[in-house]
Amino acid sequence: MHALALEQIVKDALLEDLGHGTDVTSEAVIPADLNAQAVINSRHDGVIAGVEIAKIAFRLVDPSLEITAHKDDGDVIQAGNDILSVKGSARSITTAERVALNFASHLSGIATQTAAYVTKVAGTHAKICCTRKTLPGLRGVQKQAVLLGGGSNHRFGLDDAILIKDNHIAMAGGVAAVLDAARARCSHMMKIEIEVDTLAQLEAVLSHGGADVVLLDNMDITTLSEAVRIVDGALVTEASGGVTLNSVESIAKSGVDYISVGALTHSVTAIDLGLDIKF
Amino acid sequence: MHALALEQIVKDALLEDLGHGTDVTSEAVIPADLNAQAVINSRHDGVIAGVEIAKIAFRLVDPSLEITAHKDDGDVIQAGNDILSVKGSARSITTAERVALNFASHLSGIATQTAAYVTKVAGTHAKICCTRKTLPGLRGVQKQAVLLGGGSNHRFGLDDAILIKDNHIAMAGGVAAVLDAARARCSHMMKIEIEVDTLAQLEAVLSHGGADVVLLDNMDITTLSEAVRIVDGALVTEASGGVTLNSVESIAKSGVDYISVGALTHSVTAIDLGLDIKF
Amino acid sequence: MHALALEQIVKDALLEDLGHGTDVTSEAVIPADLNAQAVINSRHDGVIAGVEIAKIAFRLVDPSLEITAHKDDGDVIQAGNDILSVKGSARSITTAERVALNFASHLSGIATQTAAYVTKVAGTHAKICCTRKTLPGLRGVQKQAVLLGGGSNHRFGLDDAILIKDNHIAMAGGVAAVLDAARARCSHMMKIEIEVDTLAQLEAVLSHGGADVVLLDNMDITTLSEAVRIVDGALVTEASGGVTLNSVESIAKSGVDYISVGALTHSVTAIDLGLDIKF
Amino acid sequence: MHALALEQIVKDALLEDLGHGTDVTSEAVIPADLNAQAVINSRHDGVIAGVEIAKIAFRLVDPSLEITAHKDDGDVIQAGNDILSVKGSARSITTAERVALNFASHLSGIATQTAAYVTKVAGTHAKICCTRKTLPGLRGVQKQAVLLGGGSNHRFGLDDAILIKDNHIAMAGGVAAVLDAARARCSHMMKIEIEVDTLAQLEAVLSHGGADVVLLDNMDITTLSEAVRIVDGALVTEASGGVTLNSVESIAKSGVDYISVGALTHSVTAIDLGLDIKF
Amino acid sequence: MHALALEQIVKDALLEDLGHGTDVTSEAVIPADLNAQAVINSRHDGVIAGVEIAKIAFRLVDPSLEITAHKDDGDVIQAGNDILSVKGSARSITTAERVALNFASHLSGIATQTAAYVTKVAGTHAKICCTRKTLPGLRGVQKQAVLLGGGSNHRFGLDDAILIKDNHIAMAGGVAAVLDAARARCSHMMKIEIEVDTLAQLEAVLSHGGADVVLLDNMDITTLSEAVRIVDGALVTEASGGVTLNSVESIAKSGVDYISVGALTHSVTAIDLGLDIKF
Amino acid sequence: MHALALEQIVKDALLEDLGHGTDVTSEAVIPADLNAQAVINSRHDGVIAGVEIAKIAFRLVDPSLEITAHKDDGDVIQAGNDILSVKGSARSITTAERVALNFASHLSGIATQTAAYVTKVAGTHAKICCTRKTLPGLRGVQKQAVLLGGGSNHRFGLDDAILIKDNHIAMAGGVAAVLDAARARCSHMMKIEIEVDTLAQLEAVLSHGGADVVLLDNMDITTLSEAVRIVDGALVTEASGGVTLNSVESIAKSGVDYISVGALTHSVTAIDLGLDIKF
Repeated sequence: MHALALEQIVKDALLEDLGHGTDVTSEAVIPADLNAQAVINSRHDGVIAGVEIAKIAFRLVDPSLEITAHKDDGDVIQAGNDILSVKGSARSITTAERVALNFASHLSGIATQTAAYVTKVAGTHAKICCTRKTLPGLRGVQKQAVLLGGGSNHRFGLDDAILIKDNHIAMAGGVAAVLDAARARCSHMMKIEIEVDTLAQLEAVLSHGGADVVLLDNMDITTLSEAVRIVDGALVTEASGGVTLNSVESIAKSGVDYISVGALTHSVTAIDLGLDIKF
Repeated sequence: MHALALEQIVKDALLEDLGHGTDVTSEAVIPADLNAQAVINSRHDGVIAGVEIAKIAFRLVDPSLEITAHKDDGDVIQAGNDILSVKGSARSITTAERVALNFASHLSGIATQTAAYVTKVAGTHAKICCTRKTLPGLRGVQKQAVLLGGGSNHRFGLDDAILIKDNHIAMAGGVAAVLDAARARCSHMMKIEIEVDTLAQLEAVLSHGGADVVLLDNMDITTLSEAVRIVDGALVTEASGGVTLNSVESIAKSGVDYISVGALTHSVTAIDLGLDIKF
Repeated sequence: MHALALEQIVKDALLEDLGHGTDVTSEAVIPADLNAQAVINSRHDGVIAGVEIAKIAFRLVDPSLEITAHKDDGDVIQAGNDILSVKGSARSITTAERVALNFASHLSGIATQTAAYVTKVAGTHAKICCTRKTLPGLRGVQKQAVLLGGGSNHRFGLDDAILIKDNHIAMAGGVAAVLDAARARCSHMMKIEIEVDTLAQLEAVLSHGGADVVLLDNMDITTLSEAVRIVDGALVTEASGGVTLNSVESIAKSGVDYISVGALTHSVTAIDLGLDIKF
Repeated sequence: MHALALEQIVKDALLEDLGHGTDVTSEAVIPADLNAQAVINSRHDGVIAGVEIAKIAFRLVDPSLEITAHKDDGDVIQAGNDILSVKGSARSITTAERVALNFASHLSGIATQTAAYVTKVAGTHAKICCTRKTLPGLRGVQKQAVLLGGGSNHRFGLDDAILIKDNHIAMAGGVAAVLDAARARCSHMMKIEIEVDTLAQLEAVLSHGGADVVLLDNMDITTLSEAVRIVDGALVTEASGGVTLNSVESIAKSGVDYISVGALTHSVTAIDLGLDIKF
Repeated sequence: MHALALEQIVKDALLEDLGHGTDVTSEAVIPADLNAQAVINSRHDGVIAGVEIAKIAFRLVDPSLEITAHKDDGDVIQAGNDILSVKGSARSITTAERVALNFASHLSGIATQTAAYVTKVAGTHAKICCTRKTLPGLRGVQKQAVLLGGGSNHRFGLDDAILIKDNHIAMAGGVAAVLDAARARCSHMMKIEIEVDTLAQLEAVLSHGGADVVLLDNMDITTLSEAVRIVDGALVTEASGGVTLNSVESIAKSGVDYISVGALTHSVTAIDLGLDIKF
Repeated sequence: MHALALEQIVKDALLEDLGHGTDVTSEAVIPADLNAQAVINSRHDGVIAGVEIAKIAFRLVDPSLEITAHKDDGDVIQAGNDILSVKGSARSITTAERVALNFASHLSGIATQTAAYVTKVAGTHAKICCTRKTLPGLRGVQKQAVLLGGGSNHRFGLDDAILIKDNHIAMAGGVAAVLDAARARCSHMMKIEIEVDTLAQLEAVLSHGGADVVLLDNMDITTLSEAVRIVDGALVTEASGGVTLNSVESIAKSGVDYISVGALTHSVTAIDLGLDIKF
């Protein structure tokens, strides 16, 4: 994401934490002119994300802070690694700390979990991607963290691609009607994906034409493999439904192009990052 | 949270999903005048949260939708339970669906996880509370979900209470100095909490006075119990550090008043909610 | 566009017109309880757009106004046609009038101009589409007006599709390198378009693969036709550069799929709409 | 306009273009550390506007870009002239390019068109001014462009001056009543203009007093000249209605003080500006 | 002010009071389904203002509240008068109460103080007006309250009129130069006021021409009267400086048209309004 | 308050003053390249506040201005003292002047008035504090000014502490019920205050327990003193109602801990500050 967009999100987060406007504790007990050095380090192994965002948080709180990144977004880290150092007003460091850590812990959790899935499918053709099951207000940064973990992005919103699900098919009056309607409205710069639950539906999609991507939803491995064989490269294939770290490898071996995993962004375990301060 | 504050958050989430402004799929393939009935139901047991927010999401997308809640925020639910029905324009239901589900799945995850902790400490004196380790932009709704799960809230931001940590003590020049500084600046409507890591620090806090709450951080159960005994009701006691579903009961048995759990809001597993639509 | 997104734009426009907050003239000279009936009609032939937006403008200024649309967005209109009637507080009608007309006149200008291009290419394979040469803040509504005029949309922003121009090719180190880089970063739900200026470049694009759409920029008709022949349906083709109402038909006859016209949104002649009021 | 106000508009335009937050093409295919030099130049003769805004666009995208203006806002330019150079990150230049050009092309179109009108009335007493027929969200920058083209501004909104039209007169119960009502409410720092369609109305305005400016609407040249003669300097005179580049000179020769032209801002032909980049 | 502009200000005030989002007291101790009736009444004599704003505050907090105004903005009230009744959810009434009262008490203070000045100058030619010495964010509503008290408004901002002060004269190189510069830039819909401190300066302004209003600053009564005599209706006259309830009558008797009083908006004593609730 | 929060408020105030976007007078009459030196000084004795805010105002208008503070927020000043100097573009200084002065005059008025109350209670135990009777949008900066004057803050909003008033007690069904309800909902980091009007109520509060602070509302001095004696340090005590500079000392002598004064923020007399400019 561009810094201009990131700054808005980070500023809103800082103002959320400042509430009525003041870090009362820092103002009360930290001498105004006290300088300090602080280091964010990790207590977990993983893939780091949110480094750029943490920098923005410290800079917005106090442009005079000196910030040094020891790791870049997307780097593999080990427990104990230093991530980012910051030097300057002790009050400013303390005020920015929680927001910087909240972003980085969460996003590193996403990157790390994504990397775990990516590792599982190594050697297959499949790529891991996210969904629109993101946390409100955080979609952009969450999807960026998926990229940093080695994953790929799905569409970003209701506006940038067409995804036809089972209900849409029924509402529009069948596969042929829905694909025609989608194609008629669709920009030539926008892709159309259609969900199928059965091989019969898949055949209907293929014979009618007009889709770019097919979502093979909740198929067992045998059906999935057969679906991939039937598609035979005519469409991009995506599998979804019930994907876990245990099941993802066998799904990948079906030959599917993409595996989408909602849990990458809707159920995230944070990476434990801490800030140590010296003064 | 008040509806006025919730509406801002929900509107922002809807606009995030609409991106450049249009739900292209719905507009392309769902007839403009098609009406439908939809039900959100749960595929998991748990404690539901986000029902009011889901209502707001549907209402903001289309004020003419008829919405009926079958469960209230905070209700215990079982897999298969219907949560909320909505009736009206099929396009509108489809456009609001993902945002409504993203909020409710996440917040129900928090409420359910909180309830699990609360259940573990049943019969003890302890209450479960959250921290400021929340997801940026979602603090208010996350903390509300903790309440719905039977938990209690900690401070909401840097502005509404004083929390003195180890670094603050060191920066201010010791326990006595930091408590005096805090008390001097502090409103009489604001509480002061101070973190202690050792019994010696605790004694210093007690003998100096000026704190309302003491945070007993990362103490083993024996030390924690001793700390509670020493405090003897003079201060509210809060335990933190390394709290898990496995450890929480034994921590509670120390007699501590509150146990704060960052994971309640920083590492949330969503409850699987789905929307079934008929037309 | 969804009403939720439109409302933000219309509200901002009304507040821009209200400046420090008051319609001084209406407040000074129109009796507070005077009711009136007003009709927006057209002094030009064309394709109407902005009807929904005009409704929103009147409703935001005064929810008690009764609004009746006589034409729908996208209808062909003739000079003298009534577009929309509004009934209620004379002050409210007068306050909303200019913003409603400013939107509708401009957007109808776009729809009408688009329809003129579309008419010119009737009988050919080509569709008319817009570009990112839009007026700041108005992209969404401008692109919607292009659809209403029978045109098609190009990408909406820097975020929703990849468009590789000559500079990008040079910076990335050639056609093969740029396409590989784009494909590696690209979501499977996002299209890649690449601009070519010569048939040699086109051949390089085709032989390397990885693009979805090719932009045939500023080619003369002969070269363009040859390009379309070479592509032979392997990619979607788009022509751009120097497109006018005079040239568009011969460009279309080259067999190209899309013709993009920046002037549709960057150089718009408004349709003259007026509001007649009776009381 | 003050930079503080301009920055808001330019930032919003950049965020509109960034949509979900990323310039995907630049990020995918331009090396992060590649520097470049770019020049905006004009392919048309005209009067340049939007130079300061283009600077703001580049600066907001990347404060480290070095920007040099070769022309100032309001300068007369010829096809081929360099307008502004920018040096630094190739990604940043590419990301800011379209927004900078969209503003400058549109505003230069306004300044150039205004200058054409101003040239036509050279040697007469008349000044060319704009109206409230502006594009939503762009009023301030459009009116600034009119000034740069040598024109003059009319009121900026509903709040900063009183403009009494035919409907207002009828609603208030005649010329005398409307002028009394306006004067009673009006600040002594605010002007009152009243529209008249006939010489009889003009006489009524003059005999009653209380107006500062009279709008002579849609009068033929003979009537207009007679109106100016009757006013005889007692009020500022403004002519409007059916003003074109062909008719403006004869209107000006009536001796009127101001001629207002809605098309200056509602029907703008952009000046073709391009950005050439070297790296 | 228009309701659309007022709603923004009132919503911001409610969100300021809600802080992190919840009226904790009401939520904790008032039963959710308890209804109540409340009346705002005045403990002071004065001129009421803020009634419409109070209505908006209650409506924004809860659209289902029934609101009845007993007094209109601008009405003269006596201690004990009921101003506004509201009926419905006790929680909602309690949540909105303070914001409604804060606006109305402050604005009624302005209206009442203005009326006191207006009464003092009754029988003279002079009108009382405000200045730009307003409280940040409240200018529009404060100036509206001045009108309600029978006063008149000065310019609303830096943008809607030209006010040339002593420093401007010196910077521009004298009275003639400054008036020429102002007139050259000025819209024909915008007024020019110039401050003079001496009769010599006044003569210079009159002999050069170009001003609409003259500000006679800090003159003693004798000089002021002489100044008014010299102007003799050629310009609107305004007196400022050291105006108090004691001095205003003698200033008015100088024959000046307007007397501007910064204290009307910068030093306001609130009217004591209370809300009595029954349930 | 943190600079991040202050900047939003100051920027909004500057944009309010700029209205449609331009300081027309400065742009018209001050040469663009003219530099100047300006000094803000005080014409009153008092306690200065708003110095940091004035700095932010000048910096936001023009980051190149050189700003030097001669007094810090909270300093005691005398009429004639220089507060802050600024050097640079004459236009920029003039554009920022009014907003900087409006903030500083108002906030210094609060600090000065607070200091007067604080002086009156010197030698007693009592502290002076503010209320939620603040001016909409200005609560944060007003409460900061109270601190600068030597006062103390009450709660900042509906969200950060519980304040139970007479109506709440009645609605909840008595003192015991209301305290139980409040305690059940209340965070352990949030204080509970309860208002009592009689000694009987006070006894009920004390015997039930659960409150942290008691508000002794509108009691005569004898009753108040008796109340303080009864509380005997078990709760923090706060007196309110009818507090004036005349009465505050005798109230303080009752031994109460805090005296809350709404007039500190709802009825503020500005300190007269002026800006002298040289060039």
